Amino acid sequence: MRALVINCTLKPSPAPSNTEALADVVSAELRRRGVEVETVRAVDLDIRPGVKTDMGPGDDWPAVHDKLLRSEILVIATPTWVGHPSSVAQRVIERMDAMISETDDDGRPVAYNRVAGVVNTGNEDGAHHVISEVSGALVDIGYTIPGQAWTYWHLGPGAGPDYLDDQTGHDWSDKTGRAMAANLVAVAEALAAHPMSAPPE
Amino acid sequence: MRALVINCTLKPSPAPSNTEALADVVSAELRRRGVEVETVRAVDLDIRPGVKTDMGPGDDWPAVHDKLLRSEILVIATPTWVGHPSSVAQRVIERMDAMISETDDDGRPVAYNRVAGVVNTGNEDGAHHVISEVSGALVDIGYTIPGQAWTYWHLGPGAGPDYLDDQTGHDWSDKTGRAMAANLVAVAEALAAHPMSAPPE
Amino acid sequence: MRALVINCTLKPSPAPSNTEALADVVSAELRRRGVEVETVRAVDLDIRPGVKTDMGPGDDWPAVHDKLLRSEILVIATPTWVGHPSSVAQRVIERMDAMISETDDDGRPVAYNRVAGVVNTGNEDGAHHVISEVSGALVDIGYTIPGQAWTYWHLGPGAGPDYLDDQTGHDWSDKTGRAMAANLVAVAEALAAHPMSAPPE
Amino acid sequence: MRALVINCTLKPSPAPSNTEALADVVSAELRRRGVEVETVRAVDLDIRPGVKTDMGPGDDWPAVHDKLLRSEILVIATPTWVGHPSSVAQRVIERMDAMISETDDDGRPVAYNRVAGVVNTGNEDGAHHVISEVSGALVDIGYTIPGQAWTYWHLGPGAGPDYLDDQTGHDWSDKTGRAMAANLVAVAEALAAHPMSAPPE
Repeated sequence: MRALVINCTLKPSPAPSNTEALADVVSAELRRRGVEVETVRAVDLDIRPGVKTDMGPGDDWPAVHDKLLRSEILVIATPTWVGHPSSVAQRVIERMDAMISETDDDGRPVAYNRVAGVVNTGNEDGAHHVISEVSGALVDIGYTIPGQAWTYWHLGPGAGPDYLDDQTGHDWSDKTGRAMAANLVAVAEALAAHPMSAPPE
Repeated sequence: MRALVINCTLKPSPAPSNTEALADVVSAELRRRGVEVETVRAVDLDIRPGVKTDMGPGDDWPAVHDKLLRSEILVIATPTWVGHPSSVAQRVIERMDAMISETDDDGRPVAYNRVAGVVNTGNEDGAHHVISEVSGALVDIGYTIPGQAWTYWHLGPGAGPDYLDDQTGHDWSDKTGRAMAANLVAVAEALAAHPMSAPPE
Repeated sequence: MRALVINCTLKPSPAPSNTEALADVVSAELRRRGVEVETVRAVDLDIRPGVKTDMGPGDDWPAVHDKLLRSEILVIATPTWVGHPSSVAQRVIERMDAMISETDDDGRPVAYNRVAGVVNTGNEDGAHHVISEVSGALVDIGYTIPGQAWTYWHLGPGAGPDYLDDQTGHDWSDKTGRAMAANLVAVAEALAAHPMSAPPE
Repeated sequence: MRALVINCTLKPSPAPSNTEALADVVSAELRRRGVEVETVRAVDLDIRPGVKTDMGPGDDWPAVHDKLLRSEILVIATPTWVGHPSSVAQRVIERMDAMISETDDDGRPVAYNRVAGVVNTGNEDGAHHVISEVSGALVDIGYTIPGQAWTYWHLGPGAGPDYLDDQTGHDWSDKTGRAMAANLVAVAEALAAHPMSAPPE
């Protein structure tokens, strides 16, 4: 079983990413459960604006799209900015929009029988909304969202520290992240054994 | 397999409900696939404000809670008002909040291994948001949301007719509703055969 | 100048309301600036489901509607439940929906030249979203939202204490609440002196 | 009085933009009311990821930031993608985040006494949510949102035509857009005559 973690931080490598730090907790638990995990830092790539799978020469999205199709599990890891998923996360979701009309040999949307979850960090409030926004979009595209397949961290109220700067609450976020990993694996395995069919006419 | 449809219209019986009319398309397809379906019209009940499972004498929620625990499939059917899920839908979700800390004999949150989807109608725009809001809340509580487990109807832009008043677009909404039913059943069956476990410590 | 604060807690009187406690900071600052402030606890009233201004005998909404029309300033104070404004807040917004088509003698929607802001408390994350949801609905109805006309409080991550149980962060929430009051008064005064006209044909 | 319209389409020039076509209705009405209007197509610029006003050499944002500070009126025009504001709109909002801590000579956040509104088009549902998301973020930054300072267009349900491809509903969207322009000008003038002060300590 394979998982793709797309880190949607605004900060290019090699800057430390708070979001990746929390996503790494989820990745570690996925690996402990036998999943092969790959992480992509989307801001390091040239992901062109648009809603097609290939936006032409120089577009780095098609390679990410290939990784998505090889992965039963997807984790979108995103910071909160002004209360929303990052522009990089929204770019990723926009590029995934084309998957709504891509089908496999059995006529199933390619996202069927894949599961997804959300990791979120912020220096301020917004997590539940970010998780709903991303989860809702992925359900639209055809991903299944397992129960409690998310974790988050921020301190409140008002603008505060980043995840890597303050240990407060890490226990909760990390434990919730391990539960997320368990739930992603459980539902991915259930769908592998009992897959969804193509939509009825 | 059992499904509970909670119709969150603002209109008490016996007024016709546009939302129920579209939910009935989903219910019919669920029944055709062998599911026993019960519909509750929440506004006809006295569902008290609060976040406990039992808010005291006269509270009609505990009976709905029992139905939820007997049903592998949940459909929240809600109109859009001012761009949001109805106050009745939010009341239902608030009362489900207590389920986050209710566990079964194996230590699993009671919503684990149950699936949910959303039916939405409106006289104006709002469907994707309503679906995300409700789906996000149900994932928080522990429900699994199958890919494309939703349908909706409204015409735009601006305030327009109700579902029962205009046939435009019914084909799309009904077909999407049948796919929703198929996806709910498929994922519910997968989880029945390969259930999620209690969250790791 | 008059302000109406609608407290949308789920708890009937005389239970203490965390949301009201933070709203009281805003009310005190409004009074200090010469505004007459009235607070309504919506859950104590029988506000019927529906989208008309008068839903018939026993409906307590018409009296609240009268208070709205006497007030240049509106404060919606709501707890966060499952990441959303409370069902009581959504009920209030639904009943305000009728105001979209109510006009004054000059053909202006009755909400024009009135301002609104949002107070939010929670035992978990959700404030920015709650504030956006409520503000967005009120803009739809015709209220003007002054810059930074909101305040909130919760601690994170995960479920935590209530506002009245923990002093952490009160300084920030209270100061932000006083700025909210100042901004509501400033924009209400500007609109009183230079009012908006009826929409062009 | 000056207005800046930021078109957040995903399509670089010279491709026709549906969102710009509807924004042009608002711009025409602003001009008719004596406002000087400039439009920026954000995707044509190199707006770097980040939350500072200047992200270094090659960053095109500082020039847009200058335009914002010269404009009493801001219009964010964005398409809906997967139910959300576009990634380009979110990028713009992220870059505006730095304005929260920028103040003028009187200690006022630079967005105070400026007004903003939202234009939205889509090939599917999402307008109310997009408008709330963008408006909520701008209120956070300090912009005032006049009542009914938005317009939108899409047909539903399901994926449908673009604004430039179908005249259905243009009358409503255009009329709503002209009201939006009137309301932006009215509140901008009111704030120019009676400005907000710096937040109290």
